[in-house]
Amino acid sequence: MKLLRLGEKELISAIRKEFSVMPKSLLVGIGDDAAVIKAGKTHFIFTKDLLLEDIHFISSFHPPRLLGRKSLNVSLSDIAAMGGTPKYAMLGLGLPFRTDPGWIEDFFSGFKSAALDEGVNLIGGDISRAKKITLSVTVVGEGTNIIKRSEAKPGSILFVSGTLGDARQGLLLLKRGFKLGDDKRADVLLNAFLDPVPNISLGQELSRLKLASSMIDVSDGLSVDLEHICQESGCGAEIQLEKLPLSPELGAFQRKLYDFALHGGEDYQLLFSVSSEKIKSISRLQKKYMITPIGCMVPEKKIILIDQRGKRKRLEIKGWEHF
Amino acid sequence: MKLLRLGEKELISAIRKEFSVMPKSLLVGIGDDAAVIKAGKTHFIFTKDLLLEDIHFISSFHPPRLLGRKSLNVSLSDIAAMGGTPKYAMLGLGLPFRTDPGWIEDFFSGFKSAALDEGVNLIGGDISRAKKITLSVTVVGEGTNIIKRSEAKPGSILFVSGTLGDARQGLLLLKRGFKLGDDKRADVLLNAFLDPVPNISLGQELSRLKLASSMIDVSDGLSVDLEHICQESGCGAEIQLEKLPLSPELGAFQRKLYDFALHGGEDYQLLFSVSSEKIKSISRLQKKYMITPIGCMVPEKKIILIDQRGKRKRLEIKGWEHF
Repeated sequence: MKLLRLGEKELISAIRKEFSVMPKSLLVGIGDDAAVIKAGKTHFIFTKDLLLEDIHFISSFHPPRLLGRKSLNVSLSDIAAMGGTPKYAMLGLGLPFRTDPGWIEDFFSGFKSAALDEGVNLIGGDISRAKKITLSVTVVGEGTNIIKRSEAKPGSILFVSGTLGDARQGLLLLKRGFKLGDDKRADVLLNAFLDPVPNISLGQELSRLKLASSMIDVSDGLSVDLEHICQESGCGAEIQLEKLPLSPELGAFQRKLYDFALHGGEDYQLLFSVSSEKIKSISRLQKKYMITPIGCMVPEKKIILIDQRGKRKRLEIKGWEHF
Repeated sequence: MKLLRLGEKELISAIRKEFSVMPKSLLVGIGDDAAVIKAGKTHFIFTKDLLLEDIHFISSFHPPRLLGRKSLNVSLSDIAAMGGTPKYAMLGLGLPFRTDPGWIEDFFSGFKSAALDEGVNLIGGDISRAKKITLSVTVVGEGTNIIKRSEAKPGSILFVSGTLGDARQGLLLLKRGFKLGDDKRADVLLNAFLDPVPNISLGQELSRLKLASSMIDVSDGLSVDLEHICQESGCGAEIQLEKLPLSPELGAFQRKLYDFALHGGEDYQLLFSVSSEKIKSISRLQKKYMITPIGCMVPEKKIILIDQRGKRKRLEIKGWEHF
């Protein structure tokens, strides 16, 4: 679940309290990237996301094919963050009365291509008329070693996949009128926003090799999502500013690199903690995936940012307002 | 899935074609009330519904507590229509910026009361800002003898639970300014629309006793939902007009009784077929539930309506336009 989009922390914790009775079969409930149910030897993983026109996406910015891909991929990213394998999807689709049939065709072609990329089957859903395009995707995954948000331990090293801040810069460029195909470097950033790729195989390997003690996908921004890990695990973290992985493309368009990397959101990278004795195994994974150590977990319940000169300050937690 | 709300048959069959490759574990895919996945000895049943403000409900008509109940209960009705037991729910909730906290509290109190009624646990979801209230509910159920839409056989008797047409008349009264508490008879109709009750225990008994060969919940109207059964089963049906179960309350407010019963929608009653040799067992169930034989399945792929004088005509298939 990505619930902090509105800063509606209080609402979520109220809901969580209200629905706190959990059956035995429920291994993970409200408050993680996905819920987990025990089913025999395997576990079923459930995630659900809303994508609303003019809140999460602007129709005129977003080619329908890429919107179709993104609507599925953001939910697949939640399954990746549990170390699971996505299996089935359901799509709730609300469409305005005069939606162009070509738009619908392109949307489904994108949805299908993202489903094929990861072997996911569309098994059902609901279609309705709507005032604005309304997308609600549920994904069912499977997994055995589930990686939660709540098991980070002080002393563990924090890693993040890929680069940070690109999606937010991509959105900024779209707002400035950039289009795909205008500029090669801009395209990297536009695609980071329009067509993010879920890190499923990395999540699976971290689960299979039991390397990550906690994991989340960076959807609301590094600061917000790291705070989720800290809160759920009951500890704090230190981040080294200079270690944050940045793309050359972000550098080409943006001076406030670190602000974008820390608070950007929608990067759908994996943020995870690894206990120090497992660091060797991670270096093997680093030959295959771009994963960067950016800090460590600490006992004190604060998130500290260490800048280039070694100066320490408390990290500001800022979520990402979409539009 | 209730997909015909817009008459968007073509879209659904295109999607179904596009996503026709089904894994072995998927027992029921697109085109039934819910999807079914094999998981060891049991089956998981998945359903997803959208409820959108000004499309499926009008905020000023719908007390938030009852909207909370209905948002879950319409999905529980899909699980009932498969003969399953609902277990878990996920809620996607989009709320306008200035939503009254009291509204949210009442909504969740209703959602919780419906969940408690049927032993369902809320396990996750997504909350977001939205222009209009956006509700997307996913329910996961379990079952063993799954009752599909597609197994009705000519010669079987058609039954429907409860009474038909009340919900549509309830909506009409709301539009005319009726409120709960104004009039006892009106309340029955208003509640049919505002607070429908899913027929879960009836669905479970029909499944356990293997009595129903096919089943659907009447959400879009008897004519539309019966056509779904006929199309999926590859046969037709005959309906006896005078047998349609009508409430005295509907009679008190509406002259076009049969029009409302045939095309009303949102009644969330169960419509099911029973082979003739099992009729005796049904009469035992009739002591416990209100279930009425309304016609039978026939080989010819048409739906015929037989009026009070025995005159036969083809049934017009009319879906329900909400607002």
